[in-house]
Amino acid sequence: MRIVVLAGGIGGARFLRGLKQAAPDADVTVIGNTGDDIHLFGLKVCPDLDTVMYTLGGGINEEQGWGRTDESFQVKGELAAYGVGPEWFGLGDRDFATHIVRTQMLGAGYPLSAVTEALCARWQPGVRLLPMSDDRVETHVAVEVDGERKAVHFQEYWVKMRASVDALAVVPVGADQAKPAPGVLEAIGAADVILFPPSNPVVSIGTILAVPGIREAIADAGVPVVGLSPIVGDAPVRGMADKVLAAIGVESTATAVAEHYGSGLLDGWLVDTVDAAAVAGIEGAGIRARAIPLMMTDVDATAAMAREALALAEEVRA
Amino acid sequence: MRIVVLAGGIGGARFLRGLKQAAPDADVTVIGNTGDDIHLFGLKVCPDLDTVMYTLGGGINEEQGWGRTDESFQVKGELAAYGVGPEWFGLGDRDFATHIVRTQMLGAGYPLSAVTEALCARWQPGVRLLPMSDDRVETHVAVEVDGERKAVHFQEYWVKMRASVDALAVVPVGADQAKPAPGVLEAIGAADVILFPPSNPVVSIGTILAVPGIREAIADAGVPVVGLSPIVGDAPVRGMADKVLAAIGVESTATAVAEHYGSGLLDGWLVDTVDAAAVAGIEGAGIRARAIPLMMTDVDATAAMAREALALAEEVRA
Repeated sequence: MRIVVLAGGIGGARFLRGLKQAAPDADVTVIGNTGDDIHLFGLKVCPDLDTVMYTLGGGINEEQGWGRTDESFQVKGELAAYGVGPEWFGLGDRDFATHIVRTQMLGAGYPLSAVTEALCARWQPGVRLLPMSDDRVETHVAVEVDGERKAVHFQEYWVKMRASVDALAVVPVGADQAKPAPGVLEAIGAADVILFPPSNPVVSIGTILAVPGIREAIADAGVPVVGLSPIVGDAPVRGMADKVLAAIGVESTATAVAEHYGSGLLDGWLVDTVDAAAVAGIEGAGIRARAIPLMMTDVDATAAMAREALALAEEVRA
Repeated sequence: MRIVVLAGGIGGARFLRGLKQAAPDADVTVIGNTGDDIHLFGLKVCPDLDTVMYTLGGGINEEQGWGRTDESFQVKGELAAYGVGPEWFGLGDRDFATHIVRTQMLGAGYPLSAVTEALCARWQPGVRLLPMSDDRVETHVAVEVDGERKAVHFQEYWVKMRASVDALAVVPVGADQAKPAPGVLEAIGAADVILFPPSNPVVSIGTILAVPGIREAIADAGVPVVGLSPIVGDAPVRGMADKVLAAIGVESTATAVAEHYGSGLLDGWLVDTVDAAAVAGIEGAGIRARAIPLMMTDVDATAAMAREALALAEEVRA
């Protein structure tokens, strides 16, 4: 079975680990969000791709969900001693090496997809990890600070400001000019099932879908497209998805997110048991729905979610 | 008193520490060799400038004479895990931060001289440290390996091959097109004394002198130019200077090195007491010479050497 998964960072990576356990023999292609990529200290950092790679490759810091395990922070301390920032983005020494290798390869002319493949040769994530695009896409968030409206990089909004002010707009700058990376449309076209993990619907999956051609390819693939709600009981399971949902005028409910994707794209939608009452309304909108436990407390619980997603996909197909 | 010092790496840096003790109120400008700069992992590394900066700024690894004290090697280990080399150049985590800052500033368009000034704002070396040039000069060494003649980067010859084969030629590639960095000629023109520490006469001081305009400015400055022999008893005090001296047809003796610089450039020359017999010959070649202990065993011994150099300069002037 060929499965295509659109993934952001932590939520996507953890779901993939469950999926690998639920369907060990499946051929999984992951299309990763690169809209939150950022240049720091002259180095190209791809937080979502790295989180997937480190999580599936056994190098992730389990507790925080991003960055490397057994990490140290000598380089960061020295950069601060030079007065070079930003200090709010916590890159560890081991993590720096990844960005150094990536930046060197990009500088030598390799596209991000080739670089990602080279990095994965070490990590052996057990999936094919593709960036959504080799072109630069950078998610910016419009905010108002001290009465002045300005646009900040998504990481500045998310990590530095901790989404403490309202997001007035979310713009994937460059997306309209970006092309899907080599292999992306082919993987979608060859898929048996397409899954949306409980990743952020705006700045993760929404950004991937903003690359011209990807949304259309998914809608036209003629295979079940099943998602898992990142909203449980009217609040994001983790992160601050409500902030960016509000920016695009979508309520933070499992129903509203499903309707935001829409029945033209989404065939099936899993909501948490606490949202069981929403199932009928979602099915009324033309999207088959089920209520199951959606907390990724451990790999077994996550594998159960993945099995339910695959079961719902088969139900849709039949 | 305004002193200009031409410096390579370890020998130059240690001499400068002694000079600072011997002449604490002097205004010292250091013209640093950049011919052994190298790009590693996409980062610009300037070994000689950093050795001077770390040594005078209190951050040097005293035992090995280069690199940072209290160093760790997480980044290097990770790069090796990615299969990315070279592994023979030992960059530590703290040191990496310096190269990251430098590379980012160069990428932003700052010349190396401005970058060096910015780095020194942290280290406060107590001297004005100038790269010999903002232009790229790269010392290559011609060698014969397995019957095949090839040119390798100086660092590859020095660090990887440990100068284990003969150097057939030493070429400062790009030197003929390089311009002295801003401030270099001005500092030479305003100097009261110019000193050559016991640095490598070929790949350190020789490279600096190969930048068009610098040798001429020193010869024309009309102030005493005094050097200290890096050769003691027919062998280099440290390093493998004999290998590169042979490549340019100069014997590894204090006398031969003095004659290589020549009386047109050099006014005074300090040799070690074991080479006292050479003094007469050197003076016969038109260069005033003295025999004193030339081992930089500690800062006090080095300060004594610096005082002797300054005394010889005054003797020359009188």
